[in-house]
Amino acid sequence: MTYCVGMMLEKGLVFMSDTRTNAGLDNISTFQKMKIWEQPGQGVITLMSAGNLATTQAVVSILDERTKAHDERDPSILAVPSMFQAARLIAKTLKDVIANHAQVGQRADSAFNATLILGGQIAGGPPRLFLIYPEGNFIEAGADTPFFQIGEMMYGRPILVRAYEPGLSFEEAMRLLLVSFDSTIKANLTVGLPLDFHFYETDSLEQGKTGRISADDPYFLAISQGWGEALKSALDQQPTFEF
Amino acid sequence: MTYCVGMMLEKGLVFMSDTRTNAGLDNISTFQKMKIWEQPGQGVITLMSAGNLATTQAVVSILDERTKAHDERDPSILAVPSMFQAARLIAKTLKDVIANHAQVGQRADSAFNATLILGGQIAGGPPRLFLIYPEGNFIEAGADTPFFQIGEMMYGRPILVRAYEPGLSFEEAMRLLLVSFDSTIKANLTVGLPLDFHFYETDSLEQGKTGRISADDPYFLAISQGWGEALKSALDQQPTFEF
Repeated sequence: MTYCVGMMLEKGLVFMSDTRTNAGLDNISTFQKMKIWEQPGQGVITLMSAGNLATTQAVVSILDERTKAHDERDPSILAVPSMFQAARLIAKTLKDVIANHAQVGQRADSAFNATLILGGQIAGGPPRLFLIYPEGNFIEAGADTPFFQIGEMMYGRPILVRAYEPGLSFEEAMRLLLVSFDSTIKANLTVGLPLDFHFYETDSLEQGKTGRISADDPYFLAISQGWGEALKSALDQQPTFEF
Repeated sequence: MTYCVGMMLEKGLVFMSDTRTNAGLDNISTFQKMKIWEQPGQGVITLMSAGNLATTQAVVSILDERTKAHDERDPSILAVPSMFQAARLIAKTLKDVIANHAQVGQRADSAFNATLILGGQIAGGPPRLFLIYPEGNFIEAGADTPFFQIGEMMYGRPILVRAYEPGLSFEEAMRLLLVSFDSTIKANLTVGLPLDFHFYETDSLEQGKTGRISADDPYFLAISQGWGEALKSALDQQPTFEF
């Protein structure tokens, strides 16, 4: 499985993904699930994926080749006029890949499916964030639903629901995301470190802060250990029940 | 869906269950999912269920009738010599009910399945806690796995994992459980108030503190509101990230 979060803040767009993939419990690997396309001044697009790895890699490869090959340049992911068109192009690519895999070879129920989080900004438009379904349709984040999760989303959802605010700084968003990811990693074997992140600043039109948080990252360790203590002490602060 | 937790403490056994059942999103009802059998001085058994309501009600009714009807008294749920025998009897009843439903009428994949948490104490033995699978087998709680959850367990799991301690008082356990249930209810429509509870004290051999926590319970409201604030302040206490 997987855990990815895409978040819309006043300051910009925030993305974090884990890197664990598994085919069964005894076949575990590390793969990057976050892909960033950048053309400074023109547009920055970030894509995260959960689901069948062959499907998501095929989608990224097809989109990626289009940005490189000269004779097959249109429709290029970075040539799209708006984020909405980027979402349509990626959703169509995803749907085609799934349909293509599903028609040949052995049948497998939903096994080729994948779900994507897409976010970014194209010059002339605002930053936008989309959740793309394997059926090829998608929804957009707004004020009521300002973040999307894909994969093992349940464990890390309560803290996001409680602590998300649109005015969070990037530093605060990083802390919130690491708590959400740590809760998930502690509870589910199919989500694992390292974590990839991208913090895109609105109107910068260039790749923002990116990096990878590994299992021995001192900040992550401090959060992981500190959060358990903080939760216990938060619980202690609650009023005492009386029978 | 459902959310139930059974917990083994030094002080005794703790049970909490929600009461929402649904067949589709537009068919919601309230049903008690906790059943207590008591014979003071002899034994107390608590059963909680998640899954197909017809199945779980059939299991409880069959076991219940056996405690009342005179000519069909053996094997009675309260006549069992040990909790292990109670688990075997209930597991067999569950398996029989599922098999019975599955063989007649229309076929439905797994639709008749149910999972149970069983806990209690029979005179002469210690308190024991079991998780019973629809296949009719079961596992027992121990020092390494001192609590079981069934139903929508993911949202409320992180706080249990972090804050459970075997030495919790019943009052502390109530607080912990309400936080876990509140996180689940906030995130999932298929889990809802009121909540039923039973706190069984080791070696008392009589029904312990039981009751129902409704949506307007002042303590629950205080926890539900206070916990959001406490989480945010716990997050604020964590070290700040620096890029």
